[in-house]
Amino acid sequence: MDVHVEEIPKTIEIVRDGQEIRCHYIDERLLPGKLQICKTNDWKELVSAVKELAVRGAPALGIAGAAALTLWVSNADSPSNIDAVAEEIATARPTAVNLRWAVRRALDEVIAQNATCNDMDTIAELLFAFTRDLQAEDERVNRTMGENGASLLPRNARVLTHCNAGSLATHFFGTALGVVYTAALQGRVSRVYADETRPVGQGARLTTWELARAGIPVTLICDNMAASIMAKGMIDAVIVGADRIAANGDTANKIGTYGVAVLARAHGIPFYVAAPTSTVDCTLESGDAIVIEERSPDEVLAEPIAGVDVLNPAFDVTPARLITKIITETGVYDPVGIRASKPE
Amino acid sequence: MDVHVEEIPKTIEIVRDGQEIRCHYIDERLLPGKLQICKTNDWKELVSAVKELAVRGAPALGIAGAAALTLWVSNADSPSNIDAVAEEIATARPTAVNLRWAVRRALDEVIAQNATCNDMDTIAELLFAFTRDLQAEDERVNRTMGENGASLLPRNARVLTHCNAGSLATHFFGTALGVVYTAALQGRVSRVYADETRPVGQGARLTTWELARAGIPVTLICDNMAASIMAKGMIDAVIVGADRIAANGDTANKIGTYGVAVLARAHGIPFYVAAPTSTVDCTLESGDAIVIEERSPDEVLAEPIAGVDVLNPAFDVTPARLITKIITETGVYDPVGIRASKPE
Repeated sequence: MDVHVEEIPKTIEIVRDGQEIRCHYIDERLLPGKLQICKTNDWKELVSAVKELAVRGAPALGIAGAAALTLWVSNADSPSNIDAVAEEIATARPTAVNLRWAVRRALDEVIAQNATCNDMDTIAELLFAFTRDLQAEDERVNRTMGENGASLLPRNARVLTHCNAGSLATHFFGTALGVVYTAALQGRVSRVYADETRPVGQGARLTTWELARAGIPVTLICDNMAASIMAKGMIDAVIVGADRIAANGDTANKIGTYGVAVLARAHGIPFYVAAPTSTVDCTLESGDAIVIEERSPDEVLAEPIAGVDVLNPAFDVTPARLITKIITETGVYDPVGIRASKPE
Repeated sequence: MDVHVEEIPKTIEIVRDGQEIRCHYIDERLLPGKLQICKTNDWKELVSAVKELAVRGAPALGIAGAAALTLWVSNADSPSNIDAVAEEIATARPTAVNLRWAVRRALDEVIAQNATCNDMDTIAELLFAFTRDLQAEDERVNRTMGENGASLLPRNARVLTHCNAGSLATHFFGTALGVVYTAALQGRVSRVYADETRPVGQGARLTTWELARAGIPVTLICDNMAASIMAKGMIDAVIVGADRIAANGDTANKIGTYGVAVLARAHGIPFYVAAPTSTVDCTLESGDAIVIEERSPDEVLAEPIAGVDVLNPAFDVTPARLITKIITETGVYDPVGIRASKPE
């Protein structure tokens, strides 16, 4: 197997384009048909890209949040509105904790400097450097997570994943798929089965695309086929990402993850979550407190049918008891012990 | 709740149109956007309609099989090819036993008469009457099944179903949804949750449409949302149809059914199969022997992605141990005792 992860382009990055600070991001709504890298200096465009799922995935949302705040500062005359803007960015989507976490950290940087400096260019430089560091940290964390998780897989493992927790959900390399890439380089992965992940199709459109681009054999299945291939003994392990992990190990991730976890348990297949510690939210005791975003019915049903209601929760919560291990950049944890993954 | 099942048009029926025998059928590929009733005297058109899922659902396939043979006879000069034609019709789709069962029964009628009669018009009349009887029997069986199954539901039940085992899968009234209609008329159903049922969307397009037309409150969910709504206590019972039931109660049904059964068991929710005894195939000891149709990848992925494989099994097998009861027109059975449902 010739694995070449570096052929996957960066999902989102802040760059200096001449005098101007810009954010470059892949419009993931156009994949797999078209790889289009958008370039903007408009923070509102980036917030729209987040709301409309052009940019998605918990770690990528963190970078998008920091980048959006940087773009706002680089075009503003005074920092007086910064708290309101930060709040607008942080609430663009409610479930992934990384968005608020990154905006909060960015704001703390500004506050720390603000005592001595009100010059907007200086603040912009500060936030630019912060966002660049966040990108680099994301890749470093993902690669470490990959090293930590890869040894959990047997040789020639056939891995099932749900949604996209790949390079396309991060700046680069991915969380769950980061583990897959590292394991594949060690000869531990023979094939990945990608759940389609209705209604948005992150598995069908993104996971398949990036795995194929990286040279990993990949088979697309509809979400409702997972049970059947598990029963046939075709899956050795499940690995997914996370949008928010509560202090007790309960994990919010893309809708359908919980069902896959129940199925994995019923078939005796280990179920792993791979996520950076920035996804762990120790302010929540359990998954019951995680806000689940309900999205528009038209994602499920393009043309409404008279008299037909539609549910469209974007996430569900997998209880800690169904998770075999949580893989982070600080180590591999029993889910109930996930609190220990975070520095105090 | 104002339930009016009679507003659902007949799915498939053989009729005399002047001098000619024709088959009228709903092209279900066009639903829910367009209700188009096709009228044909061409047996090959009907076989194509079966292969392309314009007509689907195990009981409807039985009627289609008998109707196709009738159309062939009514346009043929001699019965000499009838066995080859019958085989071509019976194998149009491999998993639902009803197709072969109905064609076999139709052929037996011809053989019984053939001793005294080689006149094609007479044979056509015979098969026309046979197919009419099959239609009437289908509706009668479905209504009896409805009566048998309805009392299994608690009052104001919230029912989950997968795929379409409704009127649109039969001549009229439906199997799993036949139970729902009967129960709704008794005040036993408050809402049906319909799994989308990828890749063909029988739940999204057909179950929603016919339930709304019959006046039953219905909510569409993606297949991967079922686990989440079960965990929230939103489902009191699951009812599905069947394409083939082996002698030990193992049941082949639309892909995804097995996963729903595992989830129902994990949440302590009863899981019912409703199917006519014509679906029970006592020649197969267990579900392991049921042939599972693998359909084209383009049903899953409209545009191929380079390097991406696709699985598309149309059915899966739910083991008897996960089925609470099987409802037929002869009674309600423990799955392991399903053999007793069939007259010797």
